[in-house]
Amino acid sequence: MLGDRRRVFVAEIRPVVDGGALEAKAIQGVPLPVRATLVADGHDPLVAWVRHGPGEPPAGPGSVPPRRAGEEPMLAEGNDRYVAWLTAPATGQWWFSVCGMPDDYGAWLRDLRIRFLAGQDITLELEEGVLMARHRLGLRGVPAADRAALRSLVKTLRAGDAEARLVAAEQPAVVELMRRTADRSFATVSPALPLWVDRPRAGFSAWYEMFPRSEGADPPRSGTFRSAEGRLSMIASMGFDIVYLPPIHPIGTAHRKGRNNSLEVQSGDPGSPWAIGGAGGGHSAVHPDLGTLDDFDHFVAAAREAGLEVALDYALQCSPDHPWVTEHPQWFRHRPDGSIRYAENPPKRYQDIYPINFDTDDAAALWIALRDVMLFWARRGVRAFRVDNPHTKPFRFWEWLLREVRGAYPEAIFLAEAFTRPAVMQRLAKLGFSQSYTYFTWRNSKWELEEYLRELAQTAEADWFRPNFWVNTPDILHAALQHGGPSAFRMRAAIAAITGPSWGMYSGYELLESTALREGSEEYLDSEKYQLKPRDWNAPWSIAPFIATLNAIRRRHETAIAQLHTLHVHHVSGDNLLCVSRSSIDRSDVLLLVVNLDPHQTHDGVTWLDLDALGISATRPFEADDELSGETFTWQGPENYVRLDPSWRVAHVLHLRQS
Amino acid sequence: MLGDRRRVFVAEIRPVVDGGALEAKAIQGVPLPVRATLVADGHDPLVAWVRHGPGEPPAGPGSVPPRRAGEEPMLAEGNDRYVAWLTAPATGQWWFSVCGMPDDYGAWLRDLRIRFLAGQDITLELEEGVLMARHRLGLRGVPAADRAALRSLVKTLRAGDAEARLVAAEQPAVVELMRRTADRSFATVSPALPLWVDRPRAGFSAWYEMFPRSEGADPPRSGTFRSAEGRLSMIASMGFDIVYLPPIHPIGTAHRKGRNNSLEVQSGDPGSPWAIGGAGGGHSAVHPDLGTLDDFDHFVAAAREAGLEVALDYALQCSPDHPWVTEHPQWFRHRPDGSIRYAENPPKRYQDIYPINFDTDDAAALWIALRDVMLFWARRGVRAFRVDNPHTKPFRFWEWLLREVRGAYPEAIFLAEAFTRPAVMQRLAKLGFSQSYTYFTWRNSKWELEEYLRELAQTAEADWFRPNFWVNTPDILHAALQHGGPSAFRMRAAIAAITGPSWGMYSGYELLESTALREGSEEYLDSEKYQLKPRDWNAPWSIAPFIATLNAIRRRHETAIAQLHTLHVHHVSGDNLLCVSRSSIDRSDVLLLVVNLDPHQTHDGVTWLDLDALGISATRPFEADDELSGETFTWQGPENYVRLDPSWRVAHVLHLRQS
Repeated sequence: MLGDRRRVFVAEIRPVVDGGALEAKAIQGVPLPVRATLVADGHDPLVAWVRHGPGEPPAGPGSVPPRRAGEEPMLAEGNDRYVAWLTAPATGQWWFSVCGMPDDYGAWLRDLRIRFLAGQDITLELEEGVLMARHRLGLRGVPAADRAALRSLVKTLRAGDAEARLVAAEQPAVVELMRRTADRSFATVSPALPLWVDRPRAGFSAWYEMFPRSEGADPPRSGTFRSAEGRLSMIASMGFDIVYLPPIHPIGTAHRKGRNNSLEVQSGDPGSPWAIGGAGGGHSAVHPDLGTLDDFDHFVAAAREAGLEVALDYALQCSPDHPWVTEHPQWFRHRPDGSIRYAENPPKRYQDIYPINFDTDDAAALWIALRDVMLFWARRGVRAFRVDNPHTKPFRFWEWLLREVRGAYPEAIFLAEAFTRPAVMQRLAKLGFSQSYTYFTWRNSKWELEEYLRELAQTAEADWFRPNFWVNTPDILHAALQHGGPSAFRMRAAIAAITGPSWGMYSGYELLESTALREGSEEYLDSEKYQLKPRDWNAPWSIAPFIATLNAIRRRHETAIAQLHTLHVHHVSGDNLLCVSRSSIDRSDVLLLVVNLDPHQTHDGVTWLDLDALGISATRPFEADDELSGETFTWQGPENYVRLDPSWRVAHVLHLRQS
Repeated sequence: MLGDRRRVFVAEIRPVVDGGALEAKAIQGVPLPVRATLVADGHDPLVAWVRHGPGEPPAGPGSVPPRRAGEEPMLAEGNDRYVAWLTAPATGQWWFSVCGMPDDYGAWLRDLRIRFLAGQDITLELEEGVLMARHRLGLRGVPAADRAALRSLVKTLRAGDAEARLVAAEQPAVVELMRRTADRSFATVSPALPLWVDRPRAGFSAWYEMFPRSEGADPPRSGTFRSAEGRLSMIASMGFDIVYLPPIHPIGTAHRKGRNNSLEVQSGDPGSPWAIGGAGGGHSAVHPDLGTLDDFDHFVAAAREAGLEVALDYALQCSPDHPWVTEHPQWFRHRPDGSIRYAENPPKRYQDIYPINFDTDDAAALWIALRDVMLFWARRGVRAFRVDNPHTKPFRFWEWLLREVRGAYPEAIFLAEAFTRPAVMQRLAKLGFSQSYTYFTWRNSKWELEEYLRELAQTAEADWFRPNFWVNTPDILHAALQHGGPSAFRMRAAIAAITGPSWGMYSGYELLESTALREGSEEYLDSEKYQLKPRDWNAPWSIAPFIATLNAIRRRHETAIAQLHTLHVHHVSGDNLLCVSRSSIDRSDVLLLVVNLDPHQTHDGVTWLDLDALGISATRPFEADDELSGETFTWQGPENYVRLDPSWRVAHVLHLRQS
């Protein structure tokens, strides 16, 4: 401490999770902003940069040899904040630290120019510049070319008239040379912070959920993996990336639920796939009605061929018929009479489900068994898992599990299905879930959507929470869809697909399925959770082509849509229009969504675009190509008129270009 | 990690500075809110508490024996935030950690009641309660009385009808017993975070700045410490706590500045006290015109007798005549021609000042010498230092110095005089300055004041930044005072004294001195910085009695005014009225300031009080005693009419009472 000559303090670094105890998120190839506050005493400018490299954060990041660490200069953003955009070239662990020190040459140069303009004699000051160059010549590790340039600078600063020497000192190449060779003995280097770098699909994906047993079913005969393969090409042609299957395991018969969640089961009712485990096995088995493990492997391969990857459900609960109930009774809770405690939400009872008891003294063995389930499916090629209700299982289990699985499969993706309190959803994301379900389904008004999008993109949550916007799920048929008609389905899909870096849809959405179990419920009538549901995918009212258009726009503009940090909400008049832009870091790819939130009536209004955020000049017109309609509009300045009649046009998705 | 059974995660703990690398601030005897987010899986309630104790944070806070650590229960505030109010009994280092675990008994009890009301048989569930009590009986360290109570509970839970047993289980004493004796084996204990506990005056103080050389001066004859003692009783009777003296050291003669900062010095001009060092010595000497060190000691003793403490200026700069210039030339910067570099802000030159060169290779010796200056004055009884321009000296020097001086004198107070960028002012406060000058002087409109007060009281800054609101300084005579007349002086003093936990005034304010050097300048004409300025303190226009009333209100309501965390801005109509409440934690002491910000015209309006924040019921009237006028108003509900004619009443300072 005594005599410490480091002048800079670094603080408020982002991205960071729990002070560096957990990894912040990055995506391979997608620029990530690293920001920090750097201050020093006095009024001199600073140089700031980010050091970064693969692997675990080194204890002493300053000691990492330069060849093992990358460097990225940080730029001042105002208010003593600095930013660098980091792009990780590979998946896996990564680290960075923020470094800074006073810019001695920059300060000298600034003052030199002021002194000169004030008519002061700068001869002595120029000699200070010579001393700075000479000091650099005395440092170790300065490359030969730079040494030659420094020697040349010493001569230049001593030859010619004052102005010529000043101008020479101001040459950008000289400034760059002096920064590059500056003495870093007293630079401040922050502790290294950890990042986890995911593959691109972790941050940019379109999910499609389907029950394979419904595809090719002829009730009561179940569909199979083989018959479900016939559906894959249609899903792929809608532009989805991931096909997610609810649990594919044997289903218990004890207390099986009948149609519409009835306690009365009827012959032929297949039961809920989430009541996992039966005579045919548990979490590592496939339901015999669907086929064999080989059939599953064939399905995964067929999906891959169609350009899709398969995501499985990871649902940690058991039916009373699950093999673990007899093999490992200690993994369940027992009541004082010795019976196993079924799931309850008092006074409700779910006798078809036995929750796992994580408080068991046999916790270590339990965790390993649960991990091995995931590794079992990973070994069969599954790299994406939708995790069922993770918020009802211990957080430290997830932290450990995700680390274990990623250690073996760094490309694994985990989607957290937790619809609960904000702090709990944030906690799961912090612990490592790659993506999270969100409140999107319940954000329908303009102010709700604006506030939620700003929260997700512009607060610290963006360091760890990756939203996946689902327009529906087997559990959630929102009232807006029940009563909004076809326009509501198009409108919600457009918002999800364009504002969400990831989005998802449960099958039937494209057919406008909208009948709830009863008024006020978000459950589907005749829910596929409890019965087979073959569908006519070629129904004339299908909006599959519209969905395909949305996903095609997403793929064309991946650099914009995958970049959550630049999402920007723009002002637009009225309570029924929403205006949001998505753009790449360099603003070479800018999309503007203007959407009518009222599925019933036409609304018009005027935008007030934040042109700076769009990288567009107010003084010249710009082109707005509507990628939904194929039209091109010519706009200028922040104010532009829009009118959306939902009966034939729910939104503009405009690609903005200015030459 | 594997099998870890701790269910709770603790995050977003406050107060915290730089993740715990630096100490957050507390005040002896003043309740400090400790807040954190605690989450666990599932939906069960949690128990949360704060452990705390004196000294450095233990590496493993869980291992501190209970007798050495205090405990405070945390209460849920909603959104998974919990709070405990901690009151440190002594000054010095302190630490706390946040702990939590599921409330097994609370969850069981909640479900038991629901089951019973739903008509379910709860016999088996009651037996679960018995098992919980028995588990506690098996734990070590349960006191004998609790063991007896647990055994009695076991019997109660097995006797009588279901409802009687349920009611017995719900008794608050039983709930408390079961919480107190709960098994903490799997409790989560956060890392311990450091606090620095200051004496009360660090957080609640009224400062008065005076130049002792002016008191009893007969220009060109200087006043002395002895003559200045005559002023102390008047300062004390105005209710101030601290009398702060600009530098009292010998003043250099080389390049001495004349009156009104003139480069031309005239015979008898005393020079600026901040040009420290001359023939008579440097930072550890007193100016011979003021007297001797003995005279200084006598002044300090006289102040103490009057109920005042003396604060000295700690200004790290030297005149060219300072002894260090010849004794330690390496502590100054040298130009290439060997001359010492004087202070500059190019193109401006300050040839009367030599800045200290902290980049010297002799930094360790320099730091020690600078520390020894402060220790020299501390040994003479000085415990408060106003630090001049700390932002132009290295931050790590301050971090070290403050720690060193506090190590010897834990009651030392340091006021940072840094008027600069927010991040720099925050950094200094984070490093340990007890109080900070603020932007208060430049916050005059309603929205500026509201926004600034909210920032200071309700953001994380409150964890480390203690504002001191100065109404003027020898450098700052704000235009609002130059043009606002007597009402402006009263109005600004009322805002500073009532909203600021600490406030300050430079002498002459009470005499309404308002003449600037020139239009557009904040410098005083004939500034006391450059000349002696004896005053007639008994001028009939003096507002000293008003100042005394304000300070008397502060002292009567210290529990409210010293508590920055509860400062609350209330809505009041119009752009010229400001309404702010101050209250103690338990709301037994609530003050409401309503002030007219326009010194020229009467304004009226209607308050919209946040009654919850005031702890006042809307259904009954309450009394509002105006402590400035002696009147009592009877108000009810949030809406109350106010009218303030600044010619005779600039503000209400209302003590609110509801029986």
